[in-house]
Amino acid sequence: MDDEAFQRAAEKIRTIVGADGFDAGDRTRAHYARSTSLWPSLPLAVVFPTSTQQVQGLVRVAAAFGFPIHAISRGRNWGYGDATAPTDGQLILDLSRMNQIVEVNAELAYAVIEPGVTQGQLFTFLRDRDIPLWLDCTGAGREASLLGNALERGFGHTPYSDHFASLSGMEVVLGDGRVLETGLAHYESARARYLYPYGVGPSLDGLFAQSNFGIVTRAGLWLMPRPEAFRAFFVRAEHDEDLEPLVRCLSLMRRRGILRSAVHIGNDLRVLASRLTYPWERAEYETPLPDVLRKQLRHELHIGAWNVAGGVYGDRRMVRASKRTIQNMLRPYRVVWIDNRKMRIARWLSSRLERRGRGQRLRNLLASVEPAYALMTGEPVDEPLRGAAWRVRGETPTEPVDPRDISAGLLWASPVLPATSGAAREVVRILEPIYEKHRFEPLLTFTLVNERAMVCISSISFDIREVEESARAKSCYAELNSTLVTAGFIPYRTGPLGYEHLVDRSGVFWSLANQIKKVLDPSGIISPGRYL
Amino acid sequence: MDDEAFQRAAEKIRTIVGADGFDAGDRTRAHYARSTSLWPSLPLAVVFPTSTQQVQGLVRVAAAFGFPIHAISRGRNWGYGDATAPTDGQLILDLSRMNQIVEVNAELAYAVIEPGVTQGQLFTFLRDRDIPLWLDCTGAGREASLLGNALERGFGHTPYSDHFASLSGMEVVLGDGRVLETGLAHYESARARYLYPYGVGPSLDGLFAQSNFGIVTRAGLWLMPRPEAFRAFFVRAEHDEDLEPLVRCLSLMRRRGILRSAVHIGNDLRVLASRLTYPWERAEYETPLPDVLRKQLRHELHIGAWNVAGGVYGDRRMVRASKRTIQNMLRPYRVVWIDNRKMRIARWLSSRLERRGRGQRLRNLLASVEPAYALMTGEPVDEPLRGAAWRVRGETPTEPVDPRDISAGLLWASPVLPATSGAAREVVRILEPIYEKHRFEPLLTFTLVNERAMVCISSISFDIREVEESARAKSCYAELNSTLVTAGFIPYRTGPLGYEHLVDRSGVFWSLANQIKKVLDPSGIISPGRYL
Repeated sequence: MDDEAFQRAAEKIRTIVGADGFDAGDRTRAHYARSTSLWPSLPLAVVFPTSTQQVQGLVRVAAAFGFPIHAISRGRNWGYGDATAPTDGQLILDLSRMNQIVEVNAELAYAVIEPGVTQGQLFTFLRDRDIPLWLDCTGAGREASLLGNALERGFGHTPYSDHFASLSGMEVVLGDGRVLETGLAHYESARARYLYPYGVGPSLDGLFAQSNFGIVTRAGLWLMPRPEAFRAFFVRAEHDEDLEPLVRCLSLMRRRGILRSAVHIGNDLRVLASRLTYPWERAEYETPLPDVLRKQLRHELHIGAWNVAGGVYGDRRMVRASKRTIQNMLRPYRVVWIDNRKMRIARWLSSRLERRGRGQRLRNLLASVEPAYALMTGEPVDEPLRGAAWRVRGETPTEPVDPRDISAGLLWASPVLPATSGAAREVVRILEPIYEKHRFEPLLTFTLVNERAMVCISSISFDIREVEESARAKSCYAELNSTLVTAGFIPYRTGPLGYEHLVDRSGVFWSLANQIKKVLDPSGIISPGRYL
Repeated sequence: MDDEAFQRAAEKIRTIVGADGFDAGDRTRAHYARSTSLWPSLPLAVVFPTSTQQVQGLVRVAAAFGFPIHAISRGRNWGYGDATAPTDGQLILDLSRMNQIVEVNAELAYAVIEPGVTQGQLFTFLRDRDIPLWLDCTGAGREASLLGNALERGFGHTPYSDHFASLSGMEVVLGDGRVLETGLAHYESARARYLYPYGVGPSLDGLFAQSNFGIVTRAGLWLMPRPEAFRAFFVRAEHDEDLEPLVRCLSLMRRRGILRSAVHIGNDLRVLASRLTYPWERAEYETPLPDVLRKQLRHELHIGAWNVAGGVYGDRRMVRASKRTIQNMLRPYRVVWIDNRKMRIARWLSSRLERRGRGQRLRNLLASVEPAYALMTGEPVDEPLRGAAWRVRGETPTEPVDPRDISAGLLWASPVLPATSGAAREVVRILEPIYEKHRFEPLLTFTLVNERAMVCISSISFDIREVEESARAKSCYAELNSTLVTAGFIPYRTGPLGYEHLVDRSGVFWSLANQIKKVLDPSGIISPGRYL
């Protein structure tokens, strides 16, 4: 777009969103260009619509002038592209001002929200009004968008961990400015629009996950009624070989309905990275982390080779019954059970001991369970963001911060695999040598996302200011992805660097997806280059 | 299509499927034209492909000659169009010979099946090999297709009651002959194709539910691991006003995770119709059923005004815990619990008593719980088909039969409603006077299909040979649908008579669906007139 056309477009945009809703300043553009994922892209400008009508208007202007737009909810898509558009020169629609909690229904346990609503915002809203509903949060922090994550098919820690499956009745602005309502929502009178996602006739909701088919501006989000009872359980397994029995057992418990939430199994490095940054001095500035030091740190911080965190939800009787069964099935391991009471006591004890200069072990234990416990009880926390700082050089901030502010580099390989011990081991065997070769540490978690499949979240942490390290991160990422895909472990989600490993334009699936894209966005203005 | 073109097409078709795979005989065509739903349609011919390639070939022939085709799995879509195409002159692709159980994975609890696989077939397969997996069945009988029902978003009776949500990795023949594999399945190597339905990028699976976008020829179907323990519970509530507390309580238990299966609440008439046909003599040939007689029959057969059937699944501890909680929450009612042991004893006792000419009460009780018990334990049964014969004149067959063989007429109004007592009552208040006015009985069931919504299945039963009664059935159906839709209770599914109440071509949803149809089926040859 030439400058004159841009000025005319800017004029139209200002008419729609007002002068304070449009920002084409260099600083703002640079700010939005930042990325943890080696794919910075400089936007044309940033615009802040406050309503669906404004989004429609913006889409129409973009179509008329032929420039691309990219909508972000809160831009916290860490390691998968963050707030950036797939290419330079796209107009960022920052939907953070569309942050209305339109409705909360306590009886039927759902909220209707706009894309700008954050995990922290809905959590606070519910808590302040004492509405007995729990969120399912990810570790992306309090400022991350609920809707944005659900559309990327993120997952959390409670029985409502499948975020996309918790949506019902979407409102979507299409590339030609039309507003689509999905499920039952397009029937004006529909009483169950937020309660029954399928509607009648074909279901279109799936089209708007991990795509560039439209801009979702509102949806119903199912929430979990606060359970009468809750207990978290933690297992610290000392040996690498414990992975197999743990996966076998937890997977079986999911299929038997004993466990109904997304259980997470993290390795030592994953837990380490949530507590420390890379111990450069002790490692004598070598990478990857020497094996001896890895074992020392594990020991010092009371971290297992594999670390399980899961929860049991229900009424008192059910939780008691499940606890016994889980205890029984995990017999070879010491299972630590924590509930609110225990947590309160531990916190009190820890602060007493600290005043006397003691209790390091308890503090370590608390530090490793507190964030997980919070997430399992529906409370968003920022601590998991620390993991992004693992390889960042220099002073570590004491508080978790926006990874972009500290030049954290972050790439995820996140393959889906069968929930079997054999597949888990196979994935580890693929990952480890590739990380080793590129001198990174395989920080990884296996999550039982449903009764039959796991996702392995494996991150590459680096410092984006370090050119050589960043280059290695990029090749490591490429090799991880191509090797995993070849072996049949396809990522559940990807960022811009990953599309080439996944999108085969000649295949029926992707060519059909492209044909559908043309129907929904005839001018091809929404996030061109995203997945398709 | 003129006769000469038809002969040429028939020649091509025979080349694809062989001579015995094609039948254009008048008797066959008339046989397939039959419908319970007042929408008979005479097919062009019937063809029986045995493989995906054959289906592709047939689709291509149809596209080349420009005639419409309509695929049926087993044609048991009772009351929603049965085996018929939406209009006359379509070639029926009867997929009953594509009945391979391609794979059963006992560890990860799924089967890979073709559309011709019936409930009875997979049940027998699992039982004969002692594979510890349970099906989730509908009441459509042993001969009904599993995949066909899942694609219509049918639901059953166990924790796997959402049939569409149990599919993963579909193979679909599109209208241009291409084969699409959904989810992860289009990655040749994908290890989790049947374990994780979403894939990466947009999800296309929803497009093939309740549509005419493609012909699904294979899919993974999740099955429930046989639980260690199971108990069914039944509540017979005497008063119409019991509906409200029952819905309130059961709905709450679903949201709290105490109940995880689709609980059914049937009215007296629904249960009556599964046991008797219309008592013409006692009703003195009047319709609808006189109130006094209705109460008498209820009393004689030990049927409640509302009759609840649900199940609890898990290990022994969990089932015991849930039983106590349910018992507690349903305190005002007598809850009858049945497990396999009790069932065996009751059967034994009943046959002993019968030999002595006694035990009528026990037999009545058994007759009303046995089919529900079977369905809740994953066993398909034909008894629920009896309901279709309610108004059929003449001798009642002793065995349940194909409703079309006995001229049974059947139409369903099946609105989705919030799982609240208020909404349930509102639906009853809408239905009753309309049934009364058209002189039918509201045979109805409320099913808690998820944690927040119910579907009310309300049938109009009639004799299709009775012209006047059929006409009344038709107007009753139209009035039910239009009134329900106006009040915001949209059907979850419909047959050909219902499209006009639901499909608004000018709305964004349906016009977009039509645009997508053109991409997937450019010649518009697949089931034209179905939904779209």
